[in-house]
Amino acid sequence: SCNIKKVTIEDIFSGKLQAHDPEATWISDTELLYRTSDGNVIKLNVLSKTNKTLAEGKMFEMSPDLKYVLVAYNIVPVNTKLSCFEIGLFFDRERVQLTPNEVQSTALQYAGWGPKGQQLIFIFENNIYYKAQVNSPSIRLVSTGSLGVVFNGLADWLYEEEIFQTHIAHWWSPDGLRLAYATINDTLVPKMEIPMFTNALYPSGQEYRYPKAGEENPDIYLSVVSLNGPLHTVRMRKPEDPRIRKDYYITMVKWATSTKLAVNWLNRAQNNSILTLCEATTGICTKKHEDESDSWLHRQNEPPLFSRDGYRFFFTRAVPQGGRGKFFHISMSTSQPNSSTDTLQSLTSGDWDVTQILAYNEDTKLVYFLSTEDDARRRQLYSANTTGSFNRRCLSCNLSCGYISGSFSPDANYFLLNCKGPGVPHTAVYSTRDGEYEKLLDVELNKQLNTTVNNTQMPKVEYRKISIDDYCLNMQIVMPAGFTETAHYPLLLLVDGTPGGQMVTEQFQVDWTTVLVSSFNTIVMRLDGRGSGFQGTNLLHRVKKKLGELEERDQLEALRIISQLPYIDSSRVGVYGKAYGGYLASRLLRSDENPNMFKFKIKCGTVVSPITDFSLYGMMSYPVFDHTCLSLIYSNKTNGLISQLRDKKLMIIHPTADEKVHFQHTAKFITHLINEKANYTLQIYPDEGHILHSRDSQLHLSQSLVNYFVECFRPPEIPTEDKVEQDNEDDG
Amino acid sequence: SCNIKKVTIEDIFSGKLQAHDPEATWISDTELLYRTSDGNVIKLNVLSKTNKTLAEGKMFEMSPDLKYVLVAYNIVPVNTKLSCFEIGLFFDRERVQLTPNEVQSTALQYAGWGPKGQQLIFIFENNIYYKAQVNSPSIRLVSTGSLGVVFNGLADWLYEEEIFQTHIAHWWSPDGLRLAYATINDTLVPKMEIPMFTNALYPSGQEYRYPKAGEENPDIYLSVVSLNGPLHTVRMRKPEDPRIRKDYYITMVKWATSTKLAVNWLNRAQNNSILTLCEATTGICTKKHEDESDSWLHRQNEPPLFSRDGYRFFFTRAVPQGGRGKFFHISMSTSQPNSSTDTLQSLTSGDWDVTQILAYNEDTKLVYFLSTEDDARRRQLYSANTTGSFNRRCLSCNLSCGYISGSFSPDANYFLLNCKGPGVPHTAVYSTRDGEYEKLLDVELNKQLNTTVNNTQMPKVEYRKISIDDYCLNMQIVMPAGFTETAHYPLLLLVDGTPGGQMVTEQFQVDWTTVLVSSFNTIVMRLDGRGSGFQGTNLLHRVKKKLGELEERDQLEALRIISQLPYIDSSRVGVYGKAYGGYLASRLLRSDENPNMFKFKIKCGTVVSPITDFSLYGMMSYPVFDHTCLSLIYSNKTNGLISQLRDKKLMIIHPTADEKVHFQHTAKFITHLINEKANYTLQIYPDEGHILHSRDSQLHLSQSLVNYFVECFRPPEIPTEDKVEQDNEDDG
Repeated sequence: SCNIKKVTIEDIFSGKLQAHDPEATWISDTELLYRTSDGNVIKLNVLSKTNKTLAEGKMFEMSPDLKYVLVAYNIVPVNTKLSCFEIGLFFDRERVQLTPNEVQSTALQYAGWGPKGQQLIFIFENNIYYKAQVNSPSIRLVSTGSLGVVFNGLADWLYEEEIFQTHIAHWWSPDGLRLAYATINDTLVPKMEIPMFTNALYPSGQEYRYPKAGEENPDIYLSVVSLNGPLHTVRMRKPEDPRIRKDYYITMVKWATSTKLAVNWLNRAQNNSILTLCEATTGICTKKHEDESDSWLHRQNEPPLFSRDGYRFFFTRAVPQGGRGKFFHISMSTSQPNSSTDTLQSLTSGDWDVTQILAYNEDTKLVYFLSTEDDARRRQLYSANTTGSFNRRCLSCNLSCGYISGSFSPDANYFLLNCKGPGVPHTAVYSTRDGEYEKLLDVELNKQLNTTVNNTQMPKVEYRKISIDDYCLNMQIVMPAGFTETAHYPLLLLVDGTPGGQMVTEQFQVDWTTVLVSSFNTIVMRLDGRGSGFQGTNLLHRVKKKLGELEERDQLEALRIISQLPYIDSSRVGVYGKAYGGYLASRLLRSDENPNMFKFKIKCGTVVSPITDFSLYGMMSYPVFDHTCLSLIYSNKTNGLISQLRDKKLMIIHPTADEKVHFQHTAKFITHLINEKANYTLQIYPDEGHILHSRDSQLHLSQSLVNYFVECFRPPEIPTEDKVEQDNEDDG
Repeated sequence: SCNIKKVTIEDIFSGKLQAHDPEATWISDTELLYRTSDGNVIKLNVLSKTNKTLAEGKMFEMSPDLKYVLVAYNIVPVNTKLSCFEIGLFFDRERVQLTPNEVQSTALQYAGWGPKGQQLIFIFENNIYYKAQVNSPSIRLVSTGSLGVVFNGLADWLYEEEIFQTHIAHWWSPDGLRLAYATINDTLVPKMEIPMFTNALYPSGQEYRYPKAGEENPDIYLSVVSLNGPLHTVRMRKPEDPRIRKDYYITMVKWATSTKLAVNWLNRAQNNSILTLCEATTGICTKKHEDESDSWLHRQNEPPLFSRDGYRFFFTRAVPQGGRGKFFHISMSTSQPNSSTDTLQSLTSGDWDVTQILAYNEDTKLVYFLSTEDDARRRQLYSANTTGSFNRRCLSCNLSCGYISGSFSPDANYFLLNCKGPGVPHTAVYSTRDGEYEKLLDVELNKQLNTTVNNTQMPKVEYRKISIDDYCLNMQIVMPAGFTETAHYPLLLLVDGTPGGQMVTEQFQVDWTTVLVSSFNTIVMRLDGRGSGFQGTNLLHRVKKKLGELEERDQLEALRIISQLPYIDSSRVGVYGKAYGGYLASRLLRSDENPNMFKFKIKCGTVVSPITDFSLYGMMSYPVFDHTCLSLIYSNKTNGLISQLRDKKLMIIHPTADEKVHFQHTAKFITHLINEKANYTLQIYPDEGHILHSRDSQLHLSQSLVNYFVECFRPPEIPTEDKVEQDNEDDG
């Protein structure tokens, strides 16, 4: 197999090795739209198994009646998020620019269809505008908006990045008659200014509100405007509860029925939450469930799943499972017609987590969900009875697919399955009619990827479990295709460690580390240690108030075990991490204070956008953090990080316009390194954000990382300084 | 001599190798004050040869009557330049804080004694305050000041950095009865904002006015306030001349007598200047001399020297010297009592530059000056008769001192000579009474430096002249003490190239390059090519409108010549430059497109605060620049800089708060490097300015530079990438 091509950076960026996401959405009980890798939109009828290509190329969205398209262009990336929008008949090439009535031509912050016909809204200067039909005039639904300060229907930085995970903060009622929207007021939140260097003669600062640890949070409230007849807006009323006072978050909004809205409220300390059902017509919110935690509440932005009538809903919460702590399981809440109290039943149990509730079939009374029951690194599809003994059944476990995502048709009779790994991702439609599980058809999406993978020396991926204290932790080891036990490979440890995150999964993954493994004979490893997610709250909450300490220990222990393997060269070990992982990687570079104890040596490390001082970081993560833990990075102890760094190599990489982990973190870090006479090298990406936008930057970063570790992992045959001097003198 | 210690970075920063500047000032015809290396202030009577220690330690200034001291403390560096000042009796430990009457306790922008008694001024919020005596109340002399916008008595960024070379923009009349001050109005000058990262939770921008190329300049006018009796302020009137219109610079201000003020006016294009004598009581300015240039006028901030009565003055200007172009020589202007026209006589001539006019002895009618007649890299002291045939005589040429600076006593009978090299600097007092030249005494200042130098392997410095076209250029070669012709040394080229600058002089100099030479057997070279100063305007003006092109050619030619020497290893050549030198160094890294032609290879380069785009640079230098020349750095040509850089190493170093060459330059450069897939490494000094302020930063920079070139100059025994891979596969 040595003749087969190895993976290069060019392969990664050519797209030939990228799996395609079909972005599928169900438009009826039997029809769905998806996008091919060429960008075409296909309508698929899963019953007749017929395809129809609706449109070719480009960024656009179709109106629910499939008559019109909405096209975005001139998109300004990242911080300002402005685009121009045009709208036009589907079959027509002519398009009309979408603007407020009073403005001739302008960029908008958002535009999108509603759920019915041609209704749509757009957002301009943080105010929401509504059009009942494409050709009807636009009506302004709210006018309190103020750019950068008061947001209507869109999230501010905090809500987008830390809570909703999207910039959309409005929610259509399923019948399209009502629109719920958040109003987020950042007046009291301090301004963060990001210097922009390259776009003008004089550099300018880009301002936005960012609550650093301990600073004022934005205010938020939720309104519902009824669009049928004269405009009528009702504000949803916060539940009267001493635990949810002035300072709270709204972490989840979802329509339960056409008039009832589920809203989750979380206190600032993030240890108390209240799930309410709000009457859209009156604004009265009734408590449906309460949750609390000794540490902090996790997964608070996941929406419950409602039965059609709204009297029953399913949600995940952490439930104690004997001595092993709490795990996330499905609770079913059912309203009693003649009672004000609801029944609450736990449908699942065990030392594994339900990761997503997908659908509820009203006919079969089955609930469908994904969980880690098979293994924490996997996601399999299960059904569970909502009656009797809640019989549970794995529907995907015999498919040789390790990591599943997908969506059900509205009536829950069909399932679009995306198998994301471990092999080349593929997509198929399954029937779940009458509780049976049967493949209907395959959706061909990754033909080229399949061919490429077959002709390329792809890495081999292995999984191991290691025991640390009483935990069993997942580890992934990625090895060259031509791996032999008698060779000696350098080892690169990738760390993330963000509390609640997960690195070791069976998803198909190709990135710069694939190049290191395939073309440069490196072994790459990942470990999910204490603090990682999807394995119950016990493991997760261990890191509370001592961020980094236990994660560091777990990673070191994993390194110790792996570096004892005969084919690992324990003198050539590197470490890489981004953001929180950058914080951990910096700690790890410092940590082999006693090389005899570990018998391996971390030679070099790269940190990207490292968090180096948690007081500079975002507010939302605050309850998890402890200021004191940072003293370890900036230690003046002679055996601290800094002095250790003198005989190691550290590369810091930071985009200068990083809006999430500010460049400040690196500036402060470097100031300390300078004071301690430590060497470092730096790469910046001028005016780029946390996620690099330009392809040139992405390529440069990947290439730099590969080059750096190839250089670091070269066998040490370089003559020493003394020797050079000696040579010169011998010459003379 | 191999047992003698080599120079280390620690030696450089211990101060043991630093020459001490006595900061001497004459306080009478026979007495001067100077500062010892311990910081003590000594009063020296040159006639009686007696010393008196006036005070010990610390930053302070003595009042002219020697009764009081002014002490600055809590000094805020760089951009804001605020200090607190205390004032107190000389022998007393008690001090009183100096503040405006209306303010209790505040930092000031400036405080300083006047020329007589205890008179002093201070500047607060850009307004000037006057105290006739230490104990009298302060009087506000002007109230138009506005922080950062309208400056009274102090320079804005442009005037400080590019014109006056000091932040002081006020001038006492010699009798202390009048104060001239500039009012600089920056209202129309665009704001530059420098991001500061490390001093607060949220980064802040530091704003100041900075006219980039083509932007609006500050307005300036000059006022004289009489301090005797009721305040009376007169504004000096710009000469009525079509060449000096709205947009002009005032480049020099000096009192000729107690009521007459010499002022030099320069047009924005910098090719026309008018020297005037202004009547302080009326503000009427009379033209005394005009100058013009086909290129640009140079040395426009040097003050003329006046005879006691003010009717005669001496100044330097570029005068044609046959076919070799113009050189700077002394002109003497004498007013005719009964005529409105003056006599103008050239006192000196030849193909060398007068660099400074030092004194005029009213009795002997001799004028004293420094010039490059001996050699462009030297400064010797000369006298010239102002009558008859203007006989010229070198007074210092037989002193075995190469580079002289110094000052004459007020009556020009005594000369304090600072010999700045080539040996260890030393200071002495000479008598020039009756035209004789005789050493009176030595001032011991550098005892420790002498001892250190004697016990250290200091580099050997050689000078060469090379011919390029019809120019004869000065070159300096710095070699290890143990140099032998049979060894092979790596070569580091230091470039500056700022038009009008000079790198090759006989001044004693110790810095990080000394460490490279002494401890790491490197040969360091400097060349003053076309564009350099003190060799006439022909050489200087050659670079007009094609900045970098000829400088690059000259440096390459010098490298070609030197690298052919048998003891130079032409495969190990590096280049270093800062600011304009950073621009040149970047060009040089690109320039060996045809290695066969040059037979040497520039392996690596370091650029500090590089100018990479002249449109981002300061206004004042504009007439010299040509935008088009920059296309070479950012070329997309496949054989341009960027592609060349792929197999070379480039380190960019830039303090992030650089107020002179903004970090923007590096950000733009890096963006281009990223787009062209070029490797680079970067070091930043967070929140540091163009001149590094903190000792830690200075030390880190020096160490980094030494490490970088030591690494670059290692003989290339590193295995190639292919070989590493092969090795691994052989193992397997």
